[in-house]
Amino acid sequence: MERKRILTGDRPTGKLHLGHYVGSLANRVKLQDDYECFFIIADLHMLTTKPEKKDVEAIAENAREMVLDYLACGIDPEKSVIYLQSAVPEVYELNLFFEMLVTVPRLQRIPTLKEMAQAAHLEEMPLGLLGYPVLQAADILLPRAHVVPVGKDNVPHVELTREIARRFNFLYGEVFPVPDPLVGEVPTLVGIDGAAKMSKSLGNAILLSDDPKTVEKKVFKMYTDPNRVRADVPGRVEGNPVFIYHDIFNPNKEEVEDLKRRYREGKVGDVEVKEKLARALNAFLDPIRERREYFRRQTGLVDEILYEGTMRMREEGRKTLIEVRKAMGLAGVWNRISRGAERRRKKQEKGGTDADEA
Amino acid sequence: MERKRILTGDRPTGKLHLGHYVGSLANRVKLQDDYECFFIIADLHMLTTKPEKKDVEAIAENAREMVLDYLACGIDPEKSVIYLQSAVPEVYELNLFFEMLVTVPRLQRIPTLKEMAQAAHLEEMPLGLLGYPVLQAADILLPRAHVVPVGKDNVPHVELTREIARRFNFLYGEVFPVPDPLVGEVPTLVGIDGAAKMSKSLGNAILLSDDPKTVEKKVFKMYTDPNRVRADVPGRVEGNPVFIYHDIFNPNKEEVEDLKRRYREGKVGDVEVKEKLARALNAFLDPIRERREYFRRQTGLVDEILYEGTMRMREEGRKTLIEVRKAMGLAGVWNRISRGAERRRKKQEKGGTDADEA
Repeated sequence: MERKRILTGDRPTGKLHLGHYVGSLANRVKLQDDYECFFIIADLHMLTTKPEKKDVEAIAENAREMVLDYLACGIDPEKSVIYLQSAVPEVYELNLFFEMLVTVPRLQRIPTLKEMAQAAHLEEMPLGLLGYPVLQAADILLPRAHVVPVGKDNVPHVELTREIARRFNFLYGEVFPVPDPLVGEVPTLVGIDGAAKMSKSLGNAILLSDDPKTVEKKVFKMYTDPNRVRADVPGRVEGNPVFIYHDIFNPNKEEVEDLKRRYREGKVGDVEVKEKLARALNAFLDPIRERREYFRRQTGLVDEILYEGTMRMREEGRKTLIEVRKAMGLAGVWNRISRGAERRRKKQEKGGTDADEA
Repeated sequence: MERKRILTGDRPTGKLHLGHYVGSLANRVKLQDDYECFFIIADLHMLTTKPEKKDVEAIAENAREMVLDYLACGIDPEKSVIYLQSAVPEVYELNLFFEMLVTVPRLQRIPTLKEMAQAAHLEEMPLGLLGYPVLQAADILLPRAHVVPVGKDNVPHVELTREIARRFNFLYGEVFPVPDPLVGEVPTLVGIDGAAKMSKSLGNAILLSDDPKTVEKKVFKMYTDPNRVRADVPGRVEGNPVFIYHDIFNPNKEEVEDLKRRYREGKVGDVEVKEKLARALNAFLDPIRERREYFRRQTGLVDEILYEGTMRMREEGRKTLIEVRKAMGLAGVWNRISRGAERRRKKQEKGGTDADEA
């Protein structure tokens, strides 16, 4: 039986961090054994809020760093497709067809869009941003994905994709699967500053490519329990970023339980807790860093993976668009015209006369 | 010096009527001597209000009839390009890039859009319809047209195109001319029922391809002065469709002035006025019908013209998109990745080892 397909990916923001690992990468590595995965480097989505040339020009380097992180975490280009969205012509076509099948009020009801506009300091909503969930639907349905791993926030986007798939199938006949969201169980990772979400732009991230010293430094700056002014004051473990990280990244559960107990009792200093966390994180990151370095040294490998993946996606795109145009009736329109033209050409080559038919 | 370019065209609604001739065709025939004209068969625009499969399937036949009318009126495919919009891949791409440069409130301020939604009995605005002036901008700027002939109603659309061209040039560098609207002086032609506008869907149109008998019948059904119950009652000439048509299509000015005078004095019957109009219209349409028949009998000619025109437009589209992608920086992104991949491939063919670079 053919493996079911997954579509997921990232905007090309460059190097990835522990939050990406916890929120999606770890899951993707597992998924690629059971599913045929398509990982999109969504550079057209970046244009919805950042159309400036300097941002566009950074895409290649950011995409390369991101793919290196993918490989380092265990994503296998032999099993999965990694591709550059803007280099797949069919996504633009499918997007336009889908724009006919969605109403403006329907899109305005999606809560994330306004937040995105505000976050990007846009006073007015660009059309491209309002249409962003439609472009996402085109991304998902171009390889005819069955499953879309998403965070809870993005479930409404997959819901829209499902509506578009159903509407298209209803109008033109069965072409698309109606994809299911696969909602991740792992919560978003807090930043080292205790903010709700680790994010490079907030400067509270530990990168997958940070060297051991940098990791140590970042861990030592970490936000803990603000009420604990001295090591002998009992501290709070719940919601404390240091212990959230210990729980996720420190495989020595005994050590973690011991630290928690002593922290609650005011019998351990922040320094010891953080030293052990830094050690655990570096142990976790070591093999990732090693693989990253291994792939990085193979000049052009990342480019080759992106290039081959994009070619593969183009092939999928072509196949889907043939079905789409056939279903819509557009293929028939063009076929009739081009066949008519060809018949005339052939006839004229044979020296047939014009005006011989009524 | 190269001729300046014009972009204009029609949705593929099938056979054209006298209103099209007066409103645009006559003008186009003149323009093609001074400008390089691109005539778009705008089938993607049709999808904004009519996405149903039956409408799509009618496009080929409707486009053929329309092109026959173009040719019959004197549009010359040796001078001008006639092409099918949906078969030009680059228009989809350019449309998406432009969607990033326009805001939703800006589009909502265009008055025609709401009217179009209402006319199509759409309760909610489809995204594709809101984006319709953006797609128009892509149509106009894909061949980098300098001039756009429009009716007054559509000047705001060209204004948007100008804004998009300027915004693109500002963000990415000079790629597009800022096109000028060429507002037609000829008013819209009233329907035979006296309604403000001749329109096939209102059933008040005389088609360019109607045979003489049909023209006569339609003229005899024409709305005149409703207060003139008998031939000896003085009638109103101003705003009277019969005389509007006489003024436009009857080259015998003496005859028209004589009819008008006698009509005002109650000294001519409707029958005589209409007989003379039917004769004038048929004299006007005869050469058009003849040329239409001449082209129709050349099997496949219309298909060939559409096919060749579309190929020509694709070539223009490719050229423009190369400039667009270069200016935006997207060409550079893909070039870096594909060149990196190529260098690696070549090196591996030469048997170079991996991991030999730091």
